Amino acid sequence: MKYDPENIFGKILRDEIPSTRVFEDDDTLAFMDIMPRANGHVLVIPKTPCRNMLDATPEQIAAVMKTVQRMSRALMVAFDADGITLQQFNEDAGGQEVFHLHFHVLARHAGDRLGAPGKMGDQAAIQQNAEKIRTALLDC
Amino acid sequence: MKYDPENIFGKILRDEIPSTRVFEDDDTLAFMDIMPRANGHVLVIPKTPCRNMLDATPEQIAAVMKTVQRMSRALMVAFDADGITLQQFNEDAGGQEVFHLHFHVLARHAGDRLGAPGKMGDQAAIQQNAEKIRTALLDC
Repeated sequence: MKYDPENIFGKILRDEIPSTRVFEDDDTLAFMDIMPRANGHVLVIPKTPCRNMLDATPEQIAAVMKTVQRMSRALMVAFDADGITLQQFNEDAGGQEVFHLHFHVLARHAGDRLGAPGKMGDQAAIQQNAEKIRTALLDC
Repeated sequence: MKYDPENIFGKILRDEIPSTRVFEDDDTLAFMDIMPRANGHVLVIPKTPCRNMLDATPEQIAAVMKTVQRMSRALMVAFDADGITLQQFNEDAGGQEVFHLHFHVLARHAGDRLGAPGKMGDQAAIQQNAEKIRTALLDC
């Protein structure tokens, strides 16, 4: 399967559509999921093109995982979380909906359940949650 | 939170309890989940101790992800799969039940649903699935 640069994360990387960014480095970007399943629901993507784990290079994966770990630690602080769930989907059957490699990083609390997928979040709440993460990142 | 070497994956690494291994290299081990949620359900762990993504070193994560990618590609072949789902749980609230870093790698087919968690699998079927993966790995 081929990478299509017109996927929405490609557009986010090129700033052709808006996103709520919380972190970036030379190789990766972390931004808020617009359909959050928890208050702390961040997506981490490489800045270079690849479809998913099946075609990514070791360098792309290493860069993404470095940011995934940093975001996991930041979400623990930002939301006083009790745990973190990571999800990563490959191809339609694997649950993938946007075909640019991404990891979901979700802040969890004891006894919580993830929200339903596919439901647009409240924009003001997403902005507030993003600000909590940016503040936590100052110490992570 | 501290790493407890008496966790069951620590015991599997020391061969104190049996497991169905499908792949290993110097730094990582891949073996069949005994409560599979799909025919192809493999766990990938580092051979060195760490609890989860919150305390793992970059080197442990890089080694694990290299094997996760290899297993993802092998599962696609072994089960003629249409996709792969990765899950990784951190602390109780994040869904973690064994406190040694592990990634779930699950082979998916169009329209399937993951089986219920926590249900012991059929040992003969697990052995057959393991053999399919070992065969696929010869070419992956």
